[in-house]
Amino acid sequence: MGPRIRKSPFFEATVAAGVSAFTVYNHMYMPTSYGDPAEEYRRLTERVALWDVAGQRQVEIAGPDAASLVQYLSARSLSGLKGGRARYAPICDHDGYLINDPVVLCLADDRFWLSIADSDLGLWAKAVAAERGDDVRVFEPDVSPLAIQGPLAEELAIDLFGAEVVGSLGFFHHVGAEIDGIPLVLCRSGWSKQNGFELFLTDGSRGVELWDRVMESGARFGIGPGTPNASERIESGLLSFGSDNGPRTDPFETGLGAWVNLDGEYDFIGKAALLARVERGVERALVNVSFVDDSGPVESLPLEHPRAALLNGQVVGELRNAVWSPRLGHAIGIGLVQRSAGTPGTRLTVDIDGVECSVVVASEPFGTPRRLFSAT
Amino acid sequence: MGPRIRKSPFFEATVAAGVSAFTVYNHMYMPTSYGDPAEEYRRLTERVALWDVAGQRQVEIAGPDAASLVQYLSARSLSGLKGGRARYAPICDHDGYLINDPVVLCLADDRFWLSIADSDLGLWAKAVAAERGDDVRVFEPDVSPLAIQGPLAEELAIDLFGAEVVGSLGFFHHVGAEIDGIPLVLCRSGWSKQNGFELFLTDGSRGVELWDRVMESGARFGIGPGTPNASERIESGLLSFGSDNGPRTDPFETGLGAWVNLDGEYDFIGKAALLARVERGVERALVNVSFVDDSGPVESLPLEHPRAALLNGQVVGELRNAVWSPRLGHAIGIGLVQRSAGTPGTRLTVDIDGVECSVVVASEPFGTPRRLFSAT
Repeated sequence: MGPRIRKSPFFEATVAAGVSAFTVYNHMYMPTSYGDPAEEYRRLTERVALWDVAGQRQVEIAGPDAASLVQYLSARSLSGLKGGRARYAPICDHDGYLINDPVVLCLADDRFWLSIADSDLGLWAKAVAAERGDDVRVFEPDVSPLAIQGPLAEELAIDLFGAEVVGSLGFFHHVGAEIDGIPLVLCRSGWSKQNGFELFLTDGSRGVELWDRVMESGARFGIGPGTPNASERIESGLLSFGSDNGPRTDPFETGLGAWVNLDGEYDFIGKAALLARVERGVERALVNVSFVDDSGPVESLPLEHPRAALLNGQVVGELRNAVWSPRLGHAIGIGLVQRSAGTPGTRLTVDIDGVECSVVVASEPFGTPRRLFSAT
Repeated sequence: MGPRIRKSPFFEATVAAGVSAFTVYNHMYMPTSYGDPAEEYRRLTERVALWDVAGQRQVEIAGPDAASLVQYLSARSLSGLKGGRARYAPICDHDGYLINDPVVLCLADDRFWLSIADSDLGLWAKAVAAERGDDVRVFEPDVSPLAIQGPLAEELAIDLFGAEVVGSLGFFHHVGAEIDGIPLVLCRSGWSKQNGFELFLTDGSRGVELWDRVMESGARFGIGPGTPNASERIESGLLSFGSDNGPRTDPFETGLGAWVNLDGEYDFIGKAALLARVERGVERALVNVSFVDDSGPVESLPLEHPRAALLNGQVVGELRNAVWSPRLGHAIGIGLVQRSAGTPGTRLTVDIDGVECSVVVASEPFGTPRRLFSAT
């Protein structure tokens, strides 16, 4: 560890809780394991887990032109988005390729947070704003999300914030709140389908205090530390930006077409390129796959890096990810393949460290491309 | 390890060579240790070391408007830069804050590589180009640098490429070359002051082959694996972007003022903000420091993250980095402090894990702010 990569406000607490592995996300260490994947999966799907997701940094855009700029950046229409609400909004570059897929939180008519995946979207947005001459400030505020996820997250949230606050908070709604004077924005959101909340801490000096306070209240719900969970998110059809897609992948290929608005009157970055590409026909599809015989490769899962996927001996794309699914009891994965190879039931072969594996393109129940991200 | 972070073309070779730690650099794993720091330092300063620095990605800018765009992006004048030459060029955002410090390689009048530090400069440059309507392509080419660094790098290079090619290659000169048909661009450059070359591999499928070939030829020069070296680079006064500076640091504060051209007639991004700041007076300085009594803290070096630096009990900045210096025989570091606290001889105190340390701002021989980066 060195000073180039930042530590989260919750870092010391995660170390005390026994973190055993980190990844780097937006130039910040982010926990990926506490050493017991099976228990962490159970905690997330049966009780409640506490995640340090401070690496999901915020890009704040504020000022008179903020709303028009945020719309210009987003492939999804933000029409009607108002204070206290959020929307999942894929963002493309000028060539129509996906460069991030943030949740956009509207704090006020002229103030937004883009809660980003792993790319320097703030740099990019600032360049766009400056070159357009927009009257906005684009910066990274002192905001660090801490997530509580799992079926008992609701009860824990009620314990922490009261039934009235939590009961009135719909999916992707958010509200300013505090715990023992620790300031935060509470949002019903998070990167799992187990229900939960993200606590956007707005004072980085109080991270350990917040972690400890949530752990204390969560004890009676069986809370424990966890991390964004590779098995659960693939079972649930959530996109992992940068893992599932490579560079030069568009939102239609990654199953995000429903969140791209090509029909609106307004312009957004990448719109012209996307219109042309839809006209020509989208080339690839992100598909879920099931391993047919996973006795061999399962030992080397999760996949360290993408592998070529073949149909009848021809490369038709890549297996981007593979994990063991506790829910399904077999290995599953995500492929980015030519559309012709993406029909449910298609059998593909993949060489994983010298073992030839068969995978079958899945339909229900764990997702088709169109259902890969069902956030509001 | 997962598929979100890329593997370098040299990855398998570094594993075979015994790599023991990686960092993440431009979304790619980059080796930081092979387990024996003292031997790696000796190899670099006495013989020759082989570094996988593929994480130093290239941003290619090509097309009719390439030259004018690259100048608009760069705080340094690129006037006179021609094919086969390179220049170190700090890059600022529109507010005049440093966002990267690449070496710009001119491949042709209309084609450049920005060999970047750790930030998504390609995203940013592409946004600027598109919003300006420049006729250029901005993309990441299949280019991965492999560095040979050390006093015997010259002899090794002659062995690999011939005395004629190497002899005619001045500092920051580059030329297309190949080894056994493996295509690359050979440049006299690298992030050490021990002399050396970077081999910009232009076919990612041949990384292990290139690594093995260089190792084979280097055997008689005592070559071995190494990585960018924290001790050597601080001793030598090379800037580590992202380690030495935080966000919102300008090139004058980081000792790069000599590579910023405020007098030119042309505009570049951040120029107006920098002019205003110079007018007001630069607030901070990057200084080298020596530890006065390093019996305690040396055990915890290198520094994992920045610590507050105090003068007479007042916080005057941060100790950004600290390492053991084999050359000097004591611990040294880099501070980013208020100018008034940056005078050589000033004694600052820093709390490192409960141990109060004294450091003294250094002058010669290991660098003053103005000499921190002496690349051409």
